[in-house]
Amino acid sequence: MTTAVQPDLAEYCREAARHAKAAAAELALVRGEQKNAWLKQSAARLREQTALLLQANAEDIAAAPRFGLSEAAIDRLRLTTKRIDEIAVGLEEVAALPDPIGEVIESSIRPSGLEVLKVRVPLGVVFFIYESRPNVTADAAAICIKSGNAVILRGGKEAAHSSAAIVEILRETAAEHGLPTDALHLVETPDRAAVGHFLGLPQYIDVAIPRGGESLIRRVVAEAKMPVIKHFTGNCHVYVDRAADLAMAEQITINAKCQRLGVCNACESLLVHADVAGAFLPRIGSALSERGIEIRADDEARRLLLVPGVKKASEEDYSAEFLGPIISVKVVDSLDEAIAHINRYGSHHTDAIVTGDLAAARQFAVRVDSAAVMINASTRLNDGYQFGLGAEIGISTDKFHARGPCGLKELTTYKYVAWGDGHIRE
Amino acid sequence: MTTAVQPDLAEYCREAARHAKAAAAELALVRGEQKNAWLKQSAARLREQTALLLQANAEDIAAAPRFGLSEAAIDRLRLTTKRIDEIAVGLEEVAALPDPIGEVIESSIRPSGLEVLKVRVPLGVVFFIYESRPNVTADAAAICIKSGNAVILRGGKEAAHSSAAIVEILRETAAEHGLPTDALHLVETPDRAAVGHFLGLPQYIDVAIPRGGESLIRRVVAEAKMPVIKHFTGNCHVYVDRAADLAMAEQITINAKCQRLGVCNACESLLVHADVAGAFLPRIGSALSERGIEIRADDEARRLLLVPGVKKASEEDYSAEFLGPIISVKVVDSLDEAIAHINRYGSHHTDAIVTGDLAAARQFAVRVDSAAVMINASTRLNDGYQFGLGAEIGISTDKFHARGPCGLKELTTYKYVAWGDGHIRE
Repeated sequence: MTTAVQPDLAEYCREAARHAKAAAAELALVRGEQKNAWLKQSAARLREQTALLLQANAEDIAAAPRFGLSEAAIDRLRLTTKRIDEIAVGLEEVAALPDPIGEVIESSIRPSGLEVLKVRVPLGVVFFIYESRPNVTADAAAICIKSGNAVILRGGKEAAHSSAAIVEILRETAAEHGLPTDALHLVETPDRAAVGHFLGLPQYIDVAIPRGGESLIRRVVAEAKMPVIKHFTGNCHVYVDRAADLAMAEQITINAKCQRLGVCNACESLLVHADVAGAFLPRIGSALSERGIEIRADDEARRLLLVPGVKKASEEDYSAEFLGPIISVKVVDSLDEAIAHINRYGSHHTDAIVTGDLAAARQFAVRVDSAAVMINASTRLNDGYQFGLGAEIGISTDKFHARGPCGLKELTTYKYVAWGDGHIRE
Repeated sequence: MTTAVQPDLAEYCREAARHAKAAAAELALVRGEQKNAWLKQSAARLREQTALLLQANAEDIAAAPRFGLSEAAIDRLRLTTKRIDEIAVGLEEVAALPDPIGEVIESSIRPSGLEVLKVRVPLGVVFFIYESRPNVTADAAAICIKSGNAVILRGGKEAAHSSAAIVEILRETAAEHGLPTDALHLVETPDRAAVGHFLGLPQYIDVAIPRGGESLIRRVVAEAKMPVIKHFTGNCHVYVDRAADLAMAEQITINAKCQRLGVCNACESLLVHADVAGAFLPRIGSALSERGIEIRADDEARRLLLVPGVKKASEEDYSAEFLGPIISVKVVDSLDEAIAHINRYGSHHTDAIVTGDLAAARQFAVRVDSAAVMINASTRLNDGYQFGLGAEIGISTDKFHARGPCGLKELTTYKYVAWGDGHIRE
């Protein structure tokens, strides 16, 4: 079991972080094959211990109404044999990813003969704060430790029993494979003040990663004394250029908006070039309406949409991350106007252009200041798995250190190692 | 000339930052050949305008006693024809470096045919705060703009006239080469509150880089609402292993400590393995004493050093960044003890081992948690030029985003550009 909660919360947090830092130093020396063996053994053990996991999960489910969870939220919290297997498969997939640690990112032999290597190394200790869902506990542990980092997990209280059972198994198997068990610590106190204590320990914790609603992220950003990888939701755009294939534009718009609502890479805003607005807006209007999407549009789009009762879009609508069945629509006169609109109202997350015009595509790719720019592809494809990074711990909306999907590499840094034979500075 | 100072300081800062952000968007589109032509033309113009620059510098020199500058500080401030030529050469060297922008860092074609490129792009706007020395004004402008970033320069008031004259020339030539002049802004108000205003504008400024004393850096870290690349001075170690070539160890120790005092990559602490302490300490003791270096050592080292009056080293001495003619010395019983000492007392900047033992070298390289680890080479070689990065804007002591020498690449980020032909998420 992870360290018991001490009466003195600050002391408990400091000790947990100090142990994690020491474990990180050990973990940096662990070979990739050990980490992979741990992941595979953990997957097997999770499957073996299905009964135990279901029992722990039943306690969370029983407690859920007390936390005021909706039926949908309770469903996300629920473990089944199938879901436990999916968690195990997730660990096996992380095991199959290349080990990022030790990679020589760059190297050169200087004129003096000094050999300079830039080598990928772990960041150290990750403090990961997330909201419920037991599978995230296993995913985050796997990604952090595979990338050589110790991790302090602070999950939602709704999944406390399930997470504790998962972490106990992962720590057991860690010990069996020579990994330091302190590299994986689940914060078990429900006291919200614990988060603040951890955020004040930059001497032990190298990065904080909050994953959840905007208020959680803002709180972490405000309090953290260490760097934060921020994962804000996105106000993503689809721009249908004058040179778009309109069937493709419809397919991409519908996929980007409707394939899954309430996710950060869903489309919240549609821009249509004036030259194709008359042909495109009627068809996309009915396609969106059929799927129950509310449209808020500028006057020109309202005139062309042929959907009754379309509200006029406000400035707030253009800036909004609806995270639901609403889309803002605007007719633009040029590529320039589309780019300016996206850079002004967007959240620099994911924005797509649909066009057959190479020059327009290249302009859009360079000038839209977003983590991901999609050319003739849905915004929903900005995702660690879709991009081939493998498992991700979030999608960063920062520019600094990590941008876009955060996989194993984004949890690393580098050091220089210079090999000489008595080299000195003249 | 750069924008005149407005009566309302907050408004002045906001406008300068807003213009810089707009200029950054333009600059991201400027071709490498334009940036290089600007740098070369600027170098030529600086040489042509030597008389004007010397005149501006004379005003700074005349004002220097008012600022209480020492003779050494006044000398560093002074421009000469030779120093102006060196500044020009610096710009030409930056012109010769490869353009980092647009580099495809990684790419893959996904099984679906979606082509995913990870492309290097500028960070945006850099706020650079530094202390005097006119050459830094030109260097920083060159590095930031070559890497595609707009820059707001806040230099020391001691060099105000020299910096203004340099920036005026660089802006003139920028305009001649189609670069947005707002990409280079010198803050001309002497009001220290301006720094605080800029540090509160994360919507316009992407990164703050303070270069100067520790108090400046701590102030910037405390106030900045955007990421900061920190450039603390270093407490660097040389560890002489039991398997060291002692002549090499002496040469490296003397170079690391004495080649230049008061720099961040100078050696502040010497660790010697007990097995060679009897042979090494007497010779290094006299070599250091001859060069006027004060030694503070543990009891075992004091016994062996044969230098009279060596003070006992305190805990503070082991943690100290002396930045002057003092060194702490300690005898250690093992490689493990050396690594533990460095990770505990060091500043994670640059640490060296002298050894002929490959296993010891490899252990040291992996386990010493520093931006640069030197094997049989002087700590003084951790430097952008020495490592082949070209010009640098500082040496980061952070792990996040940039570690070690910060050259052009460290002032960039990346974006994903995904090329599809109607790709959607299934």
